[in-house]
Amino acid sequence: MQVTSASVTALIEEFAKLPGVGPKTAQRLTFFILRSPNDQARRLAEAIVRVKENVIQCSICFNITETDPCPICANLQRDRSIICVVEEPLDVLALEKTGVFKGLYHVLHGALSPIEGIGPRDLRIAELVARARPQGEADPIREVILATNPNTEGEYTAAYIAPLLARPTLSITRLARGLPTGGDLEYADEGTLSRALEGRREM
Amino acid sequence: MQVTSASVTALIEEFAKLPGVGPKTAQRLTFFILRSPNDQARRLAEAIVRVKENVIQCSICFNITETDPCPICANLQRDRSIICVVEEPLDVLALEKTGVFKGLYHVLHGALSPIEGIGPRDLRIAELVARARPQGEADPIREVILATNPNTEGEYTAAYIAPLLARPTLSITRLARGLPTGGDLEYADEGTLSRALEGRREM
Repeated sequence: MQVTSASVTALIEEFAKLPGVGPKTAQRLTFFILRSPNDQARRLAEAIVRVKENVIQCSICFNITETDPCPICANLQRDRSIICVVEEPLDVLALEKTGVFKGLYHVLHGALSPIEGIGPRDLRIAELVARARPQGEADPIREVILATNPNTEGEYTAAYIAPLLARPTLSITRLARGLPTGGDLEYADEGTLSRALEGRREM
Repeated sequence: MQVTSASVTALIEEFAKLPGVGPKTAQRLTFFILRSPNDQARRLAEAIVRVKENVIQCSICFNITETDPCPICANLQRDRSIICVVEEPLDVLALEKTGVFKGLYHVLHGALSPIEGIGPRDLRIAELVARARPQGEADPIREVILATNPNTEGEYTAAYIAPLLARPTLSITRLARGLPTGGDLEYADEGTLSRALEGRREM
């Protein structure tokens, strides 16, 4: 028995394909769209289409962008001697929000994961190696920060990439590990606490 | 500093307007769309547009539908002597899934809520009263189930509607209250347990 319209069923199915959206949430989102003004719904639909049409990857850093090179790579004010290597475009967003990093980025688009069958060729590793190689007499890149995630895959990816980049004039670093700001020592897990102890600094 | 594309920012903003979607989830959904195949993204966009274009309210029961009257009202196999009154189209879906109810529905599109300023005129109450009124000699409707939610607004709405429908030949009922199937007596709240005791039945 068809109790609701085919259009409603179709939208519920499409919403349910999004990550973290189960059948109940998909229903709720669909009925929200039904109740919302026509132009709000149209704006969402158009934004989805436009993001697929307009967004490309920067040919230098592989961050998502609408122009090539991306605004960060094209910005001559940025420090071109440091490359921060991240897994995903969202990581660039997070780092840029801090306002602390003024260098360039390199987006790998994932992390190595033997379990999920993600190998070096699935990531932008070769492009990073080519980019970090000394170019002619000038050697502009002096540091590569391997800012992959502080989990198994991220650590493995950093450990895999580091020797590929190694040369005497290049500093290869990882982000500091320790207690998160605003965190509570009592609730910190053992791994975090061990790293915080190991990395302790003079006051 | 524009670190991501305008299209990405726009889609994040549109997703964040959906209920239960915060800025982080909106980012995650946007990057999922970016990574997903073009035609999956297009299908979602089209489903949103189509639902707004095609879906109307049934002129009899006010459930959402693509045809008027809706498939349930148009179905001559359904018991036309019972009307089940619900708050939202999703409630029709939930009740139809049980397969137990064979009558017709009436969707109020909300519940009375003095706090939110939702009064009788904001709901399809007048239409329900007109529909449940005896029509000529024949009196097809013998029962109205007020299946509004078992919460303050739902109870209030049912209590408001019941006297408007009252007449000797019409039975006005509420859904049974008690322990949910599969529930645990130990964890039932006081209200549920009180109702379960009050409504106890001979085995």
